[in-house]
Amino acid sequence: MPRLDPDRLFPPEERTRAIARALYEGVKDLPIISPHGHTDPSWFAENQPFPDPATLFVKPDHYVFRMLFSQGVSLDSLGVPRADGGEVETDGRAIWRRFAEHYYLLRGTPSRLWLDYSFENVFGLTDPFGPDTADAFYDHIDAALKTEAFRPRALFERFNIEAIATTESPLDDLRHHRTIAESGWGGRVITAYRPDPVVDPDFPGFTDNLAKFGEIAGEDVSTWAGYLAAHRNRRAYFKEVGGATSSDHGHPTAHTENLGEAEAAALYETVRTGRASAAEAEAFRGQMLTEMARMSLDDGLVLQIHPGSRRNHSGAILQKFGRDKGFDIPGRTDFVQDLKPLLDAHGLDTRLTIILFMLDETTQSRELAPLAGVYPALRLGPPWWFYDSPEGMMRFRQNTTETAGFYNTVGFNDDTRAYLSIPARHDVARRVDSAYLATLVATGRLGEDEAHDVAHDLTYGLVKKAYKL
Amino acid sequence: MPRLDPDRLFPPEERTRAIARALYEGVKDLPIISPHGHTDPSWFAENQPFPDPATLFVKPDHYVFRMLFSQGVSLDSLGVPRADGGEVETDGRAIWRRFAEHYYLLRGTPSRLWLDYSFENVFGLTDPFGPDTADAFYDHIDAALKTEAFRPRALFERFNIEAIATTESPLDDLRHHRTIAESGWGGRVITAYRPDPVVDPDFPGFTDNLAKFGEIAGEDVSTWAGYLAAHRNRRAYFKEVGGATSSDHGHPTAHTENLGEAEAAALYETVRTGRASAAEAEAFRGQMLTEMARMSLDDGLVLQIHPGSRRNHSGAILQKFGRDKGFDIPGRTDFVQDLKPLLDAHGLDTRLTIILFMLDETTQSRELAPLAGVYPALRLGPPWWFYDSPEGMMRFRQNTTETAGFYNTVGFNDDTRAYLSIPARHDVARRVDSAYLATLVATGRLGEDEAHDVAHDLTYGLVKKAYKL
Amino acid sequence: MPRLDPDRLFPPEERTRAIARALYEGVKDLPIISPHGHTDPSWFAENQPFPDPATLFVKPDHYVFRMLFSQGVSLDSLGVPRADGGEVETDGRAIWRRFAEHYYLLRGTPSRLWLDYSFENVFGLTDPFGPDTADAFYDHIDAALKTEAFRPRALFERFNIEAIATTESPLDDLRHHRTIAESGWGGRVITAYRPDPVVDPDFPGFTDNLAKFGEIAGEDVSTWAGYLAAHRNRRAYFKEVGGATSSDHGHPTAHTENLGEAEAAALYETVRTGRASAAEAEAFRGQMLTEMARMSLDDGLVLQIHPGSRRNHSGAILQKFGRDKGFDIPGRTDFVQDLKPLLDAHGLDTRLTIILFMLDETTQSRELAPLAGVYPALRLGPPWWFYDSPEGMMRFRQNTTETAGFYNTVGFNDDTRAYLSIPARHDVARRVDSAYLATLVATGRLGEDEAHDVAHDLTYGLVKKAYKL
Repeated sequence: MPRLDPDRLFPPEERTRAIARALYEGVKDLPIISPHGHTDPSWFAENQPFPDPATLFVKPDHYVFRMLFSQGVSLDSLGVPRADGGEVETDGRAIWRRFAEHYYLLRGTPSRLWLDYSFENVFGLTDPFGPDTADAFYDHIDAALKTEAFRPRALFERFNIEAIATTESPLDDLRHHRTIAESGWGGRVITAYRPDPVVDPDFPGFTDNLAKFGEIAGEDVSTWAGYLAAHRNRRAYFKEVGGATSSDHGHPTAHTENLGEAEAAALYETVRTGRASAAEAEAFRGQMLTEMARMSLDDGLVLQIHPGSRRNHSGAILQKFGRDKGFDIPGRTDFVQDLKPLLDAHGLDTRLTIILFMLDETTQSRELAPLAGVYPALRLGPPWWFYDSPEGMMRFRQNTTETAGFYNTVGFNDDTRAYLSIPARHDVARRVDSAYLATLVATGRLGEDEAHDVAHDLTYGLVKKAYKL
Repeated sequence: MPRLDPDRLFPPEERTRAIARALYEGVKDLPIISPHGHTDPSWFAENQPFPDPATLFVKPDHYVFRMLFSQGVSLDSLGVPRADGGEVETDGRAIWRRFAEHYYLLRGTPSRLWLDYSFENVFGLTDPFGPDTADAFYDHIDAALKTEAFRPRALFERFNIEAIATTESPLDDLRHHRTIAESGWGGRVITAYRPDPVVDPDFPGFTDNLAKFGEIAGEDVSTWAGYLAAHRNRRAYFKEVGGATSSDHGHPTAHTENLGEAEAAALYETVRTGRASAAEAEAFRGQMLTEMARMSLDDGLVLQIHPGSRRNHSGAILQKFGRDKGFDIPGRTDFVQDLKPLLDAHGLDTRLTIILFMLDETTQSRELAPLAGVYPALRLGPPWWFYDSPEGMMRFRQNTTETAGFYNTVGFNDDTRAYLSIPARHDVARRVDSAYLATLVATGRLGEDEAHDVAHDLTYGLVKKAYKL
Repeated sequence: MPRLDPDRLFPPEERTRAIARALYEGVKDLPIISPHGHTDPSWFAENQPFPDPATLFVKPDHYVFRMLFSQGVSLDSLGVPRADGGEVETDGRAIWRRFAEHYYLLRGTPSRLWLDYSFENVFGLTDPFGPDTADAFYDHIDAALKTEAFRPRALFERFNIEAIATTESPLDDLRHHRTIAESGWGGRVITAYRPDPVVDPDFPGFTDNLAKFGEIAGEDVSTWAGYLAAHRNRRAYFKEVGGATSSDHGHPTAHTENLGEAEAAALYETVRTGRASAAEAEAFRGQMLTEMARMSLDDGLVLQIHPGSRRNHSGAILQKFGRDKGFDIPGRTDFVQDLKPLLDAHGLDTRLTIILFMLDETTQSRELAPLAGVYPALRLGPPWWFYDSPEGMMRFRQNTTETAGFYNTVGFNDDTRAYLSIPARHDVARRVDSAYLATLVATGRLGEDEAHDVAHDLTYGLVKKAYKL
């Protein structure tokens, strides 16, 4: 018998709850569109079974292992792979038991919601997860994963995914996307152009990346013109071979520049030859956002900016375990000043779509909603990362709708590498949006008929339009 | 039959809602006091009919046209006048249809609330507004505007306005206020002294403005002493002829200075002769706030500060359409450091009232409530601009009351040039305050009898006291 | 008959309220653990009656007198002692009447809740407090204070305090703690090591304090090694004689440093000899946080950091009345950058506990929850000062739980010198946590059984564990 509350995340007051329920009813079965994320395209290309519960749920999910680590559980003991080649726990069941023992630490977090949803809705497990049920869960999930029904493509269909985007570097040959396309399988798995490795002078291996970039693009990247041509070349390849409709940029800030041709070329020369100061590296990243916007005007890719993470806060963890281990901490962002050069250049162009994501909630009402509420090129991405959660999503709507409305937002992104959490995350977003809309209806701010239209747009219409899917 | 929910903006839970309803009942018919705003005094002086629906509702309302612009509707097509003399749409009905077609973009915004309220309560239009009803609305409103009952003075009385303040530059001769006074009409329309054009060295035409200022004031503004005398002179004129009880200052930051006499005089000389650096311009604006406080000690005008807008973010729009076109974006403000010179000089003086407005909500609980909760001269203005909305008002109370209480706030300002929205805006404020107070009562934080007193104070008592009206 | 609402601070919706009520029922009678605060140990050592109502409730409570001052009531007239030796009101009853007359100013504030709670639950006074009841309240409280039942130790027992920490400077000889220990009385009153007077070069009398510090510790503080040894010495004394389990540090920012030995010694020499610039003073405070963390690894004291107050904003008040008079205003804090040196040095050490407090709520979701959600050494202290209030506490849970969970928080601190408010404050915290948990349960985010466990942990378990009590 199901343990998940069918009314979860709806407002407790009964009349408002009934409205939320009706709104949710209208969108809960809509197909999932996942326009930005980090699933591995090889899953869909090779369609191999996922190895075991710990590898699926624990080792790759920094939301999970960072919380256990914060309470003294070592990353090694959770099987998190080490960058320095050191040994880590390999016994899946031992990892799983450790996870179960500390599952209470996730109380009140979105990870807890996603996991409970997956256990119940994907695996049919309705007992509370914890030390007492750890082995039973492990056995059940492990057995399920070995069946056809739990292979990546079967889950893709079961999850009712209409389209999903992965994220690749320009150095990627998109072989998995080609394999998928040639396989005859109907699932739509597209890529997104994420050039950080050849745009960010502070990216590990930047100089080598540049060399490889020139090679793979067949362009002479020793010149600014050749470097830009290489981007145009690879963007075209990503569109054609990978079905890309967007590029994506993960920068420490939202800084942009719009330098003159000669100045930009000189800056590139400095950067290319590894002589860039911190300020020059920042300027170069900023200049490239404006260049990417210009290319978007030609090739139609949507420009996504994910700014504001101060990555790898612990040097010791970076050295031992590498990137993306939960030590990326947000910082204050000033979108208004930082985006001005780009917006002065192209912000009024109705052909361009720039989607802004944020890790600094204070910018929602003060900067992002005012900017997106007036610049035709701007749209607001959904709450991201630490804010991809019931409270985070609710605050986002409360902070942005009054100034930017609904139609300058772009629906939901799951932005995840945790495949099984995808339906759970979209479900949370649909519930929270239904709850928010129900509150507007119950307080006389929106008609119920309109709320149904908006719910559909927030779930399906806006994401298709914004991402051209 | 009415379409507006009579319980709109009240908490959905029934017991709390009943308390809110009772509190609102006690204040809903109180007269409107509008101590700060931007209505045009010529309306009341000349009492001419408003020309047509588009000119009344669309062309001048940047809340409305910015949202449409953000979704690709050109400002020209909405009849927004151009600063560069270019042609724009002049067909009122065409503009109105364009507005109706995009009315759904305003869902969830306060503009939507204000407009629906005006349609229903001012014009008796209870159908949903949209493409299907656009022409009917246009015809009905257009016909109404041609009647006596919809002339500015008749609406003033119908809106139950006890007093309204406009905002004029020291260069204004207040002819409209004189006309009103001499007309024998009983409506109280007062001015406020807004000296930005002769205080802000970055204001367009600053040098010319200074020359005109000297002339109109009959003072030699080539000296610091003469310049200050001109201000005193014009303030006296604004009090006497325009009934002013306040000055108002729209500065990029809350920066203040308290320079010595000689230093201030030297800075003025730099500014007057057009040689001020950005830092000197900032210092001068800051010095003038302190000077204005000193003049307030003599003449009793209340000092309003509206800081934190980064104006005219798009250079292209400024050039084509001019100021106030929706491209003013808030910035972070540091009141604690910025106000220290002024507060050190006069912040403990119980004779002085300084009303602070904010566009950076993070300062509400961190800076403004702690400052206003201790300095006798400080009061907090209501949520302004992007925050003059149900969520914005509710957050303001939640963020400030626990530290500053109710009695360091000053009631509501509509701060608008949209005349028909005035009763709608005051109604929203009264409803949100009733909702907030009802929540305090329902959670045992305030007695219901006290809540009635506070509701009255928030609606009527505090604004009269703070603005000396 | 009681006037306090037995359901106060619970969500109004009935089903959620019932859950909150049940959760509160399970924790309301748990003993109070007060691990950080500013009560006076002489109260418990000497167990003398409190002198009179005004001295107990008004004169020392900056929450109260600042609000009255902000509305024009002079501090002198409230009996707030002057630092410059000037005379102030000494008539307790006159002060009390002034307080009653302005009691309405506290509507909506936590002080109001605490006071009403104390009047009713400590003194049995259930009439509304105000001008009409001022004298009756005064007489009743004054008479009660003269009885045995209202002496400090009797109240300690009646308040069901299991342990309370005071805060002392290293220059304190802990005589009161010794007296308590030797008295045979069973109450657990411990100290905390607060070395600001000998760590902060900007502290009044810093150089003299250093000399006294060397003397009292029996170390040669003219050297860096001797200075550190003096700290180790006094920390050991505080542990042994005062039962300390923590140190505490009130710094303007969260800045930390981890300088090399020689560099640190040189900086100390600069500081010791009174030649430190503002930047060097900041660096020294920052270095000392890291040194204290290192000592904690040896002696086990928990490290508390209270950053972000810009103290003594009004120079005039500082001069006339001294410190802690309500003029300490928060500032923006950047924990991510500021704490990096300390966290790089010791943040991954599971033996260390660093408790972070904040006066800048924007850091809760953006910085503090992400940091505490990954660094094993970090924990989040409860809402402090202006945020020790129903809305502040609720926002804290909403902003931090999704990223840091419950188990990286440490329960409640009352942090007060207002003895009678202690049970009131803990009651507010228990109610708000119950309300928050009830909302999670009612929205399907947490099981009700789990919520009971968490409520117990938030009230009792986490504070004991974090503070080793």
